[in-house]
Amino acid sequence: MTVTVTKSHIVVAQNASGRNMNVPVYRLTAGRPGPKVYIQSSIHGAEVQGNVVIYHLLQKLKHLAVYGEVILVPNCNPIGTNIKAGEYTLGRFDPVNGTNWNRGYFYDEARVLDFASTVKPGTSVEQIKTRFRAYWREAIEQKLASPLGLGLAQQLNLQLQRLAVDADYVLDLHNGPVSARHIYIPENARSAAYCFNIEHCIFIPNVFAGALDEATFCPWWTLQSALEESFEHPPSFGIEAMTLEMGSQEVVKFDEGEQDAISILTYLNQRGVLNENHFQPKPMRRVGVELTNYKTLYTDFGGMVEYCAQPGSAVNKGEPLARVLNIDELDNDAATFTVTAPCDVIPILHFPSASVLSGTQLYKVFTQYYTLTENQ
Amino acid sequence: MTVTVTKSHIVVAQNASGRNMNVPVYRLTAGRPGPKVYIQSSIHGAEVQGNVVIYHLLQKLKHLAVYGEVILVPNCNPIGTNIKAGEYTLGRFDPVNGTNWNRGYFYDEARVLDFASTVKPGTSVEQIKTRFRAYWREAIEQKLASPLGLGLAQQLNLQLQRLAVDADYVLDLHNGPVSARHIYIPENARSAAYCFNIEHCIFIPNVFAGALDEATFCPWWTLQSALEESFEHPPSFGIEAMTLEMGSQEVVKFDEGEQDAISILTYLNQRGVLNENHFQPKPMRRVGVELTNYKTLYTDFGGMVEYCAQPGSAVNKGEPLARVLNIDELDNDAATFTVTAPCDVIPILHFPSASVLSGTQLYKVFTQYYTLTENQ
Amino acid sequence: MTVTVTKSHIVVAQNASGRNMNVPVYRLTAGRPGPKVYIQSSIHGAEVQGNVVIYHLLQKLKHLAVYGEVILVPNCNPIGTNIKAGEYTLGRFDPVNGTNWNRGYFYDEARVLDFASTVKPGTSVEQIKTRFRAYWREAIEQKLASPLGLGLAQQLNLQLQRLAVDADYVLDLHNGPVSARHIYIPENARSAAYCFNIEHCIFIPNVFAGALDEATFCPWWTLQSALEESFEHPPSFGIEAMTLEMGSQEVVKFDEGEQDAISILTYLNQRGVLNENHFQPKPMRRVGVELTNYKTLYTDFGGMVEYCAQPGSAVNKGEPLARVLNIDELDNDAATFTVTAPCDVIPILHFPSASVLSGTQLYKVFTQYYTLTENQ
Amino acid sequence: MTVTVTKSHIVVAQNASGRNMNVPVYRLTAGRPGPKVYIQSSIHGAEVQGNVVIYHLLQKLKHLAVYGEVILVPNCNPIGTNIKAGEYTLGRFDPVNGTNWNRGYFYDEARVLDFASTVKPGTSVEQIKTRFRAYWREAIEQKLASPLGLGLAQQLNLQLQRLAVDADYVLDLHNGPVSARHIYIPENARSAAYCFNIEHCIFIPNVFAGALDEATFCPWWTLQSALEESFEHPPSFGIEAMTLEMGSQEVVKFDEGEQDAISILTYLNQRGVLNENHFQPKPMRRVGVELTNYKTLYTDFGGMVEYCAQPGSAVNKGEPLARVLNIDELDNDAATFTVTAPCDVIPILHFPSASVLSGTQLYKVFTQYYTLTENQ
Repeated sequence: MTVTVTKSHIVVAQNASGRNMNVPVYRLTAGRPGPKVYIQSSIHGAEVQGNVVIYHLLQKLKHLAVYGEVILVPNCNPIGTNIKAGEYTLGRFDPVNGTNWNRGYFYDEARVLDFASTVKPGTSVEQIKTRFRAYWREAIEQKLASPLGLGLAQQLNLQLQRLAVDADYVLDLHNGPVSARHIYIPENARSAAYCFNIEHCIFIPNVFAGALDEATFCPWWTLQSALEESFEHPPSFGIEAMTLEMGSQEVVKFDEGEQDAISILTYLNQRGVLNENHFQPKPMRRVGVELTNYKTLYTDFGGMVEYCAQPGSAVNKGEPLARVLNIDELDNDAATFTVTAPCDVIPILHFPSASVLSGTQLYKVFTQYYTLTENQ
Repeated sequence: MTVTVTKSHIVVAQNASGRNMNVPVYRLTAGRPGPKVYIQSSIHGAEVQGNVVIYHLLQKLKHLAVYGEVILVPNCNPIGTNIKAGEYTLGRFDPVNGTNWNRGYFYDEARVLDFASTVKPGTSVEQIKTRFRAYWREAIEQKLASPLGLGLAQQLNLQLQRLAVDADYVLDLHNGPVSARHIYIPENARSAAYCFNIEHCIFIPNVFAGALDEATFCPWWTLQSALEESFEHPPSFGIEAMTLEMGSQEVVKFDEGEQDAISILTYLNQRGVLNENHFQPKPMRRVGVELTNYKTLYTDFGGMVEYCAQPGSAVNKGEPLARVLNIDELDNDAATFTVTAPCDVIPILHFPSASVLSGTQLYKVFTQYYTLTENQ
Repeated sequence: MTVTVTKSHIVVAQNASGRNMNVPVYRLTAGRPGPKVYIQSSIHGAEVQGNVVIYHLLQKLKHLAVYGEVILVPNCNPIGTNIKAGEYTLGRFDPVNGTNWNRGYFYDEARVLDFASTVKPGTSVEQIKTRFRAYWREAIEQKLASPLGLGLAQQLNLQLQRLAVDADYVLDLHNGPVSARHIYIPENARSAAYCFNIEHCIFIPNVFAGALDEATFCPWWTLQSALEESFEHPPSFGIEAMTLEMGSQEVVKFDEGEQDAISILTYLNQRGVLNENHFQPKPMRRVGVELTNYKTLYTDFGGMVEYCAQPGSAVNKGEPLARVLNIDELDNDAATFTVTAPCDVIPILHFPSASVLSGTQLYKVFTQYYTLTENQ
Repeated sequence: MTVTVTKSHIVVAQNASGRNMNVPVYRLTAGRPGPKVYIQSSIHGAEVQGNVVIYHLLQKLKHLAVYGEVILVPNCNPIGTNIKAGEYTLGRFDPVNGTNWNRGYFYDEARVLDFASTVKPGTSVEQIKTRFRAYWREAIEQKLASPLGLGLAQQLNLQLQRLAVDADYVLDLHNGPVSARHIYIPENARSAAYCFNIEHCIFIPNVFAGALDEATFCPWWTLQSALEESFEHPPSFGIEAMTLEMGSQEVVKFDEGEQDAISILTYLNQRGVLNENHFQPKPMRRVGVELTNYKTLYTDFGGMVEYCAQPGSAVNKGEPLARVLNIDELDNDAATFTVTAPCDVIPILHFPSASVLSGTQLYKVFTQYYTLTENQ
């Protein structure tokens, strides 16, 4: 059985010329039963490396024995990819109104609880999953059909979410500004941390803030919690959704993308999408942090900054993070000053420009982090 | 007793050159006891007409018998005012991250309820107000002093909010894109609708979405509700906060600004800041709508648009709102089409550019609106 | 003989998603011999009204007896039309590098003179025209095929210019920021001023600054001048090219576009493209100015501005053009000041935002203008 | 004799709030006679590393025996430094109109020739220099005083140029997008190539294209040429002006800035501003190219790009420069393609974003370059 790759395009928007903006959708299957996987990249337009990861995934998957189906959606935001402001891509938000392209997915806790109240004890997990998927797709489609319309980001998000609604495993490929690789993992799927070759892992709670990973796992997690009372043996739906941050934005690296693809295949191998001996997680240090301890360090000054800390390398309390130049005081001791770590941290990413206003996200850092060990 | 005008400047940010960005604060008092008023303008940088309104307010107030104190803060966002993108001002959101400049004010319902639980029955309204203001200022200052810093918009918002924390009447002067004048009024202060000379009034509930008016009235409203059970005669704090939309952005009109200033003085006259016979509300039609019925009409198409409806003028269901050109179909019947009103509406504002992508806020409209009559 | 409308699309660019960006081209002919006409619109992306004019031209032309061929190219810049920065369209220049979209057309005086040196006395005007067109097309195509490539704006311009190279009459439809209608007419075709229904006419010399009108008339005008010595009866090529400024950018008005279309048909009627009695120039005041007297008034201040003068209406020396608010001096006499006309002027357009930095083009004005009379 | 550092600020613009935008000017002298030096940085707002170089220059110069005077002007464009568009600085051009901040300096060949015609044979070089400087300053000031005003970029440029008009040595510190260090040297001062520690040298002719280096050397070079006929021993004015490209934009590196400062001090040491044994040019490979052979490679495609070539490292004809991903063709052989060098090149800089439209400046490269040897 060989893998079949089916390509289609979906229209997600129209531009000001009235032309359709479309997104490529690649579906891979070998006709074997198995889980469904949905992977998209570049919902933030400047975060392009995920497209290369998807390229390598597709090249490799088509020669592997795939179980179930894998849907790959590269370059999923054709608007955000194409707004230039100077040489860079203004890709994080809608240039018209500032809406983050990654905050308009659908979730409605009340609807999950409504559904939960209709589930009769004794229903099989598979029956529940089938019914809930239909129910949730219907909810997304109702939202999409809002009689007075929807904003562009939300329209885009919902159309992508509809593609992902049947998936068991959803991966949303992002990049940080200048960034080490890291991954957001729902707390109820902590074991996934050991399935990728990614050192830095952030564990997030069952809280919806608008992103695709949350929009995917929150309904199932909430449903599971709601059913725990009425079920003797609590059902486990096994739906996982994660955001993978594949290094820095504005950068394409084919070699690194191949390693990232292998990392993802390793995860899929653990989840039964593949059955290959050689895709095993690398023995490596893995570091965890709870979302609440993943902190942003804002500047209280404006100025020109050297980023002294390397993303991914620990910095102890009091050690330098940044050195700042004050162009109006070059003739005295205030010409430069140093920003130091307020506690022991691992800087994960920093602002991509040396010029910062006050209130800039200088660094995002792990605090109170810990080494992950599998028997934990 | 003559009015004294005291001018100061507060620093609200530093730019990338390390220079302080400051905001002018004008304080007017004649030494008479009375309420406190806080009025700011241009938190959205392209919405400049409020600055002209404040200019006229200051010119007029300095010749009037002012009771209490009036604080006027024009051009309160020196960052947003100065980001150009093409000829226009990119004033609604932080160009770095898309954060709306008007969504970072402070509110925390739990803190209000904590405070409420400390209020002993029998405490006078004035005592509660004094204590609560101190308590709330402290909360704002704690937030401002966050050990890892805050984003720029939030820093700016909190510094302005601190100036407004003692005020009884808070007015935040805005503009729409292409817009008729309208006003957001908290439902618990509906009578204010009759105190301005503004035709279109939106009544909003006790819900915090980040803006200054909400950040001002939500604490007091919530406190009042919380105390209603423990007080025989429920306290009335009389704090009012409103957002006034003074026509269209990117436009300065001195004459219209004078009329707007008179409208605001009329309101202040009703509230005891002035005691002048001639500042009486104009007899005029006033139209109300609940916030939930103030609707956005989004496009489901991209293209080039003529706005056929005039902001402020009623459009019946089925009548044209916009005519759209399709440049790829000029040789057939699809060359143009018409967007019609989905129900009876008053268009209040429309998008300021003829070029729209799908998902654009074409119009915001009153639906299920009604004429306001004072005995209602 | 009825008019045939042939639609095609040409690819002028690829976006960052790798998708082709194309431009619609409508060709109208009734099979009658006659001149060639080329009309394009929206090379500056926010100047959209010309698209409506082309819509009306097409609707009308298809019912008229057309002589020769009319090529209509609406929305000729699919990149510039689709760069939003805030709600407005960043349409005047390439957002990557600031290149004005209207400055990359081809002209090379030396090549014209080279050609002129090959023309033998006695060659007929038609022969010269045919040979020169082939020669000039070849030059444009060589440029387009530059071995190391070309910048985006230049690629776009040259592809459009290639469409226009055979035309006898070339009209480039633009808009000003906030603007009265006006037209740029080459000095050697002054009589065209009486063929449109446009009040304000700017006469320009045989100087190339990069725009399509100049790129069209400069070669012929230069060729004609060069041949004047060797020809007893100097040849007259009759090629005309003009930039028409159809009011304000960011605005679509179908009714006004119909009037503009009639104005253009009136011109085409005088030039033999039509033969219709009812397309006659309106009797109206027409005002002329030499390009050198079409002046830009820059600000030497930054601030917030009311534009007191109406585009198209005369302002005498010393009368107010703008009133400026100074938000830091509201408490003293420097709160406002007035900018007055430095001489008698007709303001033709003004900056579209009330917020200006120092060095802003506040107004462009006619100075030393005069009423045009046909016997002049 | 110790070095005195005098700091002042000049106002170069007003922002839309009406506030003055100023530029720091540091003047260093020890009271010894000697040449005048003018060094500025960051006329392009995102090119910030030059500010660090000036910081190090100032720290070092204040401990050295300075001959003459050194004027240091860091952060010379307070507007361009502070326009953010997304996280990056939109620093190369005025966001209002696209005008490159580095193209509005003054030069007028006719005025130089006018002056030359007034120089009597036998006048000493010093007399000519003194008179010409006064003459040229007057010309700049006349331009600055244009009765109808000037555009912002030009106002800024002329005010800086006025500071530099007396200087013998003018250095304008820039950065490329992602760039190796390189330097623009006028052909008539080729020997300067051996005075810095910069490997890549571009030799430019006596042609004015708007930048400060050209605006500085063109007048003197032209004057010298004009006087060559009338002078038996042609005068040599020894005025040098260069643009130094100090690596990549958006980056601050203190350590590298110190090396750059040493490189500049080495040059100044050769020119008599210092008299220090230890500032000697490093023995190193130096590579030269004529400006006409410094080529831009534009893309003829849009897509996502990996830059395979390292700025500063030679690439032979046919070797890869870039690898391009085509997100719509991941399922076939067109998924990627390679852009190769059209001839032997040294890539000096490349575009800073992986996302490119067609017509993007992918690389700027040396072609037909050669190793510089001092006896050449």
